[in-house]
Amino acid sequence: MIKEIATRKSTRKYNAKPVEDEKILQLIESARHAPSGSNTQPWHFIIVKAEETKAQIVKADGNQNWMMAAPVFIVCVADIRCRIKDDAEIFLDEASGLKELKQIIRDTAVAIEHILLAAENMGLASCWTAYFEQKDMWPILGIPSDKYVVGVVTIGYSNDGGKPAPKRALESMIRYEKW
Amino acid sequence: MIKEIATRKSTRKYNAKPVEDEKILQLIESARHAPSGSNTQPWHFIIVKAEETKAQIVKADGNQNWMMAAPVFIVCVADIRCRIKDDAEIFLDEASGLKELKQIIRDTAVAIEHILLAAENMGLASCWTAYFEQKDMWPILGIPSDKYVVGVVTIGYSNDGGKPAPKRALESMIRYEKW
Repeated sequence: MIKEIATRKSTRKYNAKPVEDEKILQLIESARHAPSGSNTQPWHFIIVKAEETKAQIVKADGNQNWMMAAPVFIVCVADIRCRIKDDAEIFLDEASGLKELKQIIRDTAVAIEHILLAAENMGLASCWTAYFEQKDMWPILGIPSDKYVVGVVTIGYSNDGGKPAPKRALESMIRYEKW
Repeated sequence: MIKEIATRKSTRKYNAKPVEDEKILQLIESARHAPSGSNTQPWHFIIVKAEETKAQIVKADGNQNWMMAAPVFIVCVADIRCRIKDDAEIFLDEASGLKELKQIIRDTAVAIEHILLAAENMGLASCWTAYFEQKDMWPILGIPSDKYVVGVVTIGYSNDGGKPAPKRALESMIRYEKW
């Protein structure tokens, strides 16, 4: 198995060591290589280090105060304009039923997972958080309402010696030839 | 960069070599390790090799006849019952506005990407297809209407010497501190 798939865990304890800018770019470079439906590549990444902005994000993101110890947040945004190219106004939120929103969430999720695996590969720790609602996140970062925030990934160096979360047994998730 | 992230491509040309059952299990084992929101692990995988079933899937999946050359399809299904645990009837399709559907599509997409990267790691080729609609896929495999098929992944040995699809420039997808 790819080592990083086996060893990565969601980390909620970070030490104070800053993350090198070059490493952040390398994380996004891995996301850049993600496959996507019709090669639409719907993702954008906002790198956030400002403490005040981080605090606002944490408040919107379920008051997960442990997040503040991570020196970098990567706000991962899906852009529906790669699929809906007209000028009509679009408002995306958790209740939206647009087919294209499902597609861009799917594709951006793949790119985010590349970030998480790349972080593990570089000795960085990460956690994908998503306890926010779109309406709370948009004003903090000036995100237009036709974008959808798929996750806020915390990045830093680990201060956590724990193990990956337990997973369902393999047999429970495999079926043959039909449901 | 993790080698498989850099080198993997979507493969639509396969040779006739069958895929070892043990390798299929190893693919799912990598998916099993995927992170998910609240560790809900909403994914199921249906391994399809029967030619007649493959043909029905291909017909539903945009008549992508190249798929038939792949000896194995993995039908990747997201299950909303890990999040909505009551007995109420749920009907999921491309127009559904349920928040939880967005969450299980996101999480299942991550598990599918583990399959694609694991395939690359094991010398297998793959392509994530999704030109189908739920209503056409369910009856083929007997999938209940409260499940959502996130993708059909073709697996086989490559007969394609091509390169990964071109990607957007790194700068186009990075912003700092705000949108």
